[in-house]
Amino acid sequence: MIVVMKRSATDADINAMIAHVESKGLKPNVIKGSERTVIAVVGDERIAGLGSLESGPGVDEVLPILAPYKLASRELKTEPTVVQARQMKVGGANIGVMAGPCSVESEEQILASAQAVKAAGATALRGGAFKPRTSPYSFQGMKEEGLKLLAAARDATGLAVVTEVVASEDVDLVSKYADVLQIGARNMQNYRLLEAAGKSPRPVLLKRGPSATVDEWLLAAEYILDAGNPNVMLCERGIRTFETHTRFTLPLASVPYVQAKTHLPVVIDPSHGTGHTHLVTAMARAAVAAGADGLIVEVHPNPDKAMSDGYQSMNFHQFAEMMKQCGRIAAAMDRELG
Amino acid sequence: MIVVMKRSATDADINAMIAHVESKGLKPNVIKGSERTVIAVVGDERIAGLGSLESGPGVDEVLPILAPYKLASRELKTEPTVVQARQMKVGGANIGVMAGPCSVESEEQILASAQAVKAAGATALRGGAFKPRTSPYSFQGMKEEGLKLLAAARDATGLAVVTEVVASEDVDLVSKYADVLQIGARNMQNYRLLEAAGKSPRPVLLKRGPSATVDEWLLAAEYILDAGNPNVMLCERGIRTFETHTRFTLPLASVPYVQAKTHLPVVIDPSHGTGHTHLVTAMARAAVAAGADGLIVEVHPNPDKAMSDGYQSMNFHQFAEMMKQCGRIAAAMDRELG
Amino acid sequence: MIVVMKRSATDADINAMIAHVESKGLKPNVIKGSERTVIAVVGDERIAGLGSLESGPGVDEVLPILAPYKLASRELKTEPTVVQARQMKVGGANIGVMAGPCSVESEEQILASAQAVKAAGATALRGGAFKPRTSPYSFQGMKEEGLKLLAAARDATGLAVVTEVVASEDVDLVSKYADVLQIGARNMQNYRLLEAAGKSPRPVLLKRGPSATVDEWLLAAEYILDAGNPNVMLCERGIRTFETHTRFTLPLASVPYVQAKTHLPVVIDPSHGTGHTHLVTAMARAAVAAGADGLIVEVHPNPDKAMSDGYQSMNFHQFAEMMKQCGRIAAAMDRELG
Amino acid sequence: MIVVMKRSATDADINAMIAHVESKGLKPNVIKGSERTVIAVVGDERIAGLGSLESGPGVDEVLPILAPYKLASRELKTEPTVVQARQMKVGGANIGVMAGPCSVESEEQILASAQAVKAAGATALRGGAFKPRTSPYSFQGMKEEGLKLLAAARDATGLAVVTEVVASEDVDLVSKYADVLQIGARNMQNYRLLEAAGKSPRPVLLKRGPSATVDEWLLAAEYILDAGNPNVMLCERGIRTFETHTRFTLPLASVPYVQAKTHLPVVIDPSHGTGHTHLVTAMARAAVAAGADGLIVEVHPNPDKAMSDGYQSMNFHQFAEMMKQCGRIAAAMDRELG
Repeated sequence: MIVVMKRSATDADINAMIAHVESKGLKPNVIKGSERTVIAVVGDERIAGLGSLESGPGVDEVLPILAPYKLASRELKTEPTVVQARQMKVGGANIGVMAGPCSVESEEQILASAQAVKAAGATALRGGAFKPRTSPYSFQGMKEEGLKLLAAARDATGLAVVTEVVASEDVDLVSKYADVLQIGARNMQNYRLLEAAGKSPRPVLLKRGPSATVDEWLLAAEYILDAGNPNVMLCERGIRTFETHTRFTLPLASVPYVQAKTHLPVVIDPSHGTGHTHLVTAMARAAVAAGADGLIVEVHPNPDKAMSDGYQSMNFHQFAEMMKQCGRIAAAMDRELG
Repeated sequence: MIVVMKRSATDADINAMIAHVESKGLKPNVIKGSERTVIAVVGDERIAGLGSLESGPGVDEVLPILAPYKLASRELKTEPTVVQARQMKVGGANIGVMAGPCSVESEEQILASAQAVKAAGATALRGGAFKPRTSPYSFQGMKEEGLKLLAAARDATGLAVVTEVVASEDVDLVSKYADVLQIGARNMQNYRLLEAAGKSPRPVLLKRGPSATVDEWLLAAEYILDAGNPNVMLCERGIRTFETHTRFTLPLASVPYVQAKTHLPVVIDPSHGTGHTHLVTAMARAAVAAGADGLIVEVHPNPDKAMSDGYQSMNFHQFAEMMKQCGRIAAAMDRELG
Repeated sequence: MIVVMKRSATDADINAMIAHVESKGLKPNVIKGSERTVIAVVGDERIAGLGSLESGPGVDEVLPILAPYKLASRELKTEPTVVQARQMKVGGANIGVMAGPCSVESEEQILASAQAVKAAGATALRGGAFKPRTSPYSFQGMKEEGLKLLAAARDATGLAVVTEVVASEDVDLVSKYADVLQIGARNMQNYRLLEAAGKSPRPVLLKRGPSATVDEWLLAAEYILDAGNPNVMLCERGIRTFETHTRFTLPLASVPYVQAKTHLPVVIDPSHGTGHTHLVTAMARAAVAAGADGLIVEVHPNPDKAMSDGYQSMNFHQFAEMMKQCGRIAAAMDRELG
Repeated sequence: MIVVMKRSATDADINAMIAHVESKGLKPNVIKGSERTVIAVVGDERIAGLGSLESGPGVDEVLPILAPYKLASRELKTEPTVVQARQMKVGGANIGVMAGPCSVESEEQILASAQAVKAAGATALRGGAFKPRTSPYSFQGMKEEGLKLLAAARDATGLAVVTEVVASEDVDLVSKYADVLQIGARNMQNYRLLEAAGKSPRPVLLKRGPSATVDEWLLAAEYILDAGNPNVMLCERGIRTFETHTRFTLPLASVPYVQAKTHLPVVIDPSHGTGHTHLVTAMARAAVAAGADGLIVEVHPNPDKAMSDGYQSMNFHQFAEMMKQCGRIAAAMDRELG
């Protein structure tokens, strides 16, 4: 890291910082400029116990140099990771497509959804059984009963099942039925849950929190990787900004940026990323063109009767049309959709 | 709520929406303007099963009118709630002050901190035993051993103990030692945890998530209230914005705004809210002047040796000076600090 | 608009509001709900002199219904506007491509750039002669001399010339040399300039300010349209958010959203929208897939020697490759690039 | 600055960067770490013609060290600047108070306002004659006629007059009538206007743009200082964030932060900073407690009849009460209000 001293820093301040850095086994390089002194610290700055250099006397600011994550870093593993769950491949030449309703509501609803999204070319079925809801007065999901319906829909269609897990104590139960564990945006920094998912044999779809920096997101992935699970997909679902015409702002530049920083595949969620059905198809196309390795989309037999998130769900016809358009974009990218 | 129809909406669209609203037991009021039709829906719009009106045909947008929370609302309970934990009162004429280190690190550290903050006028000791850390490579806290040290410091000083709980399965354990359960910003929407805290006999300090809207924050409080615990303190600790010179942006207008919307007391965290020691005192004074009901501040015997958050911790001398200055502001507000 | 009264509003408060609305020639519809009263106001709420209903006694909030712009609205003019400048068409089946250096630096530089971008398929040459620079110590542009070099490059290649105008007093001068007047993000609400551009015979490329809402952006366009110039292109170049890995956050959902609200064509600037050359191609592809009507891209013979914005400029080879890739995406959209 | 090379950078990349830096007369310090090489560049990095180091081969990122402003810097001038206009002093022991309506509407309105705010303790009268309005359909101000009314109100009361100037060509006219030139948030980066204000003999109140970083704001001040006018007041009026319950988010930590970085006084605008009358008093108190050197507040004889910004204006009684409360806070800070 680079420790920038204040212009008013004394020699004693500078020497104290040098001694502190050396006491931790790091090597300080002191550069005296005409206006101020900077101390470049060489070595792994991610060690515990370094303390807070910024609160040292005479320090103006501290600039980190190394990315704080290791296992997720492309510098460590240069070839991209391809995550597979049943027939679905996410990464490489394949763009995986996960589609289905926000919540599992009934056997007919989830089975009809599975058949429709499969017919349109999806490779996985999404659907929530445990629902984290902003309001305690909203529908909270069918829980294990919902998981069973998802598994039945998988058996009927061959689609992989992607579903959310909201607490560490549920990881085993959800792993029993699901092919992919989804960790939602609200739980991106629920470390107990990340560690438990890291011990599951199932791949994990890790959604970005709406105010998480990319470094925080990759550090959350690092918790899962560090616990032993190498199959992590990063899912961008939008950040919170001052924009109000979309529910969140979908920053598609995350796709090429994150792909340069990490070997993990990047999935885009244009449903939550926009919050309005009429914007989803355009953003799904744009995601594919930006190089996304997967899409996750909300599809419901009757969006205007959905028990959650209906305002952003597509109906079957809209989804089939989206897949057709995205397929053309994927072909122009020399990739295969679904 | 108000359903604004598109200019291009047909009579059939409008009639379908009227029928849908009526089928849910709500009363639609149709207002035909020169440019478009709006349908004002009277009744409790927070009912389950209303579905998503926005995805109905011909609908342009839907504007909610009622606040989505009930128990937290000042319309329901007009007199302010005062939360008490041991000698500390938060709300009414009293401004509670919780101070101490980010993490419990050792017996000497926490005891010295407790004595120093008490001497300066604090009414509670804060300190983390279970630490949610952004990186898996950072110090994760002393866990139950840390809780025991906090309890010992309480026994020695009489201060109330405020400490974080990070998972629902830890609530009973933490409640055994602590006087106040803190729910951190990363867990504001960990509903399993909120429900468990709602069943604890201890008051809860609920931090705002860095991208949570005020409505989302109050709905998180609603989970706790709805589970049976009436003693909730709301803690504003900053939101994430484009500003980089502070770690977060501390929006002090939350204080009067939230106090108008809810009866719950509002606590300000100027340490996380700025992220830099040299800004904390000014913001603590400003918080008191804005009408905050409490302060929570990081204080450490040796900030430059702290195992976490040292860059924003005050030393004992700085904290004593802060208390002196804040005491003068509190007096100018006819309130008592500590 | 909808005036939501407080639960505590008295009959006198409600009657006062009704009388005030009627006194302005508008028609109030009073809806008494179980919890509170709302007053729906029918008629054109954009009249001057309505005053501030929100400060009336007993008012909780005021929700606007009509979009504040008229001439820019798609409700007024349903068919999309296609803007033409020389051979370049922006909108409809055509995706216009404007490319060139941030600043005009010399005759060789601008001529070489014009020839290279034309060879790669661009339809317009961009280049700044008057440069608004954040620091007074930065290069401020070649001014009229730069305009002459741009005109010479146009004569040599047939490309349309797009260049920025920074003050109302320069509009005539810039109109003399340029085919399209660019109004930069910093000047989006420089109303004197907008009015002057509205009187120019040249089409205008109006960049969105980095914190402007879409309504504010369309109202800025409204100033130009209202002054008599119907040829306005809206250019999204990124908004300011907490993201720091890109200079700005490029919210591509603006494309379908704005196209639904207005008839004006939408151009995307992936250079400013990301701030890093290595992200530009992916975002240009994504913009085309999202349905953008044009692209504006920074290209420089030697980005590492550019006098401004070199970190986000492409070299000729990178631009040619970008055009090839974007051409494939455009074909998949049944549109023509350039 | 610090140039961080990629882990994959070759020796040739590193040598090329060293040569480039040296060719500009700067001194590179090369530090080879175990993971990557960084090059610390000593000397004034603010020189023109340095080009964009980030686009050099093998470069990962470039971290600036020096603040980009000079004249505004506290490192250059350590004692705080006190700006005086007639009897008003802003800075040092004095907290200047500027109050009045958003727009000058009539002789009675502005005179009554001047008398009322003076009676309550204000030291300057604010009021807009040239109004930059988001919509072309809104009231645009009384222009020179409004300036004359302001001057008349000054003659009657002795208050200094603060009013906005929106274009460089108006600076002389406005300087003729006003004691302080206000540059609004929308014009913070209108460099032509900044330069013109820099040549005026009047002090300048420079509002921060809602998405401007502190560095950009201080660079805007630098334009004025560099043009020869040393009397610049910085006015924080809120930034744009995802918060919607206030019009803008007022980041009061700007006060101590900016005061540490610059010698210029800092004024807070709690009216625009919150956008709602009922929040203004609390934030005015908080601003004084944070250490602000001045306040600027909207006051109108009849806020519900104001031609602009009525929802955030105080009436005379509310302002007098605000002044009383702020006076007590100022006394607790050992400063004088007004």
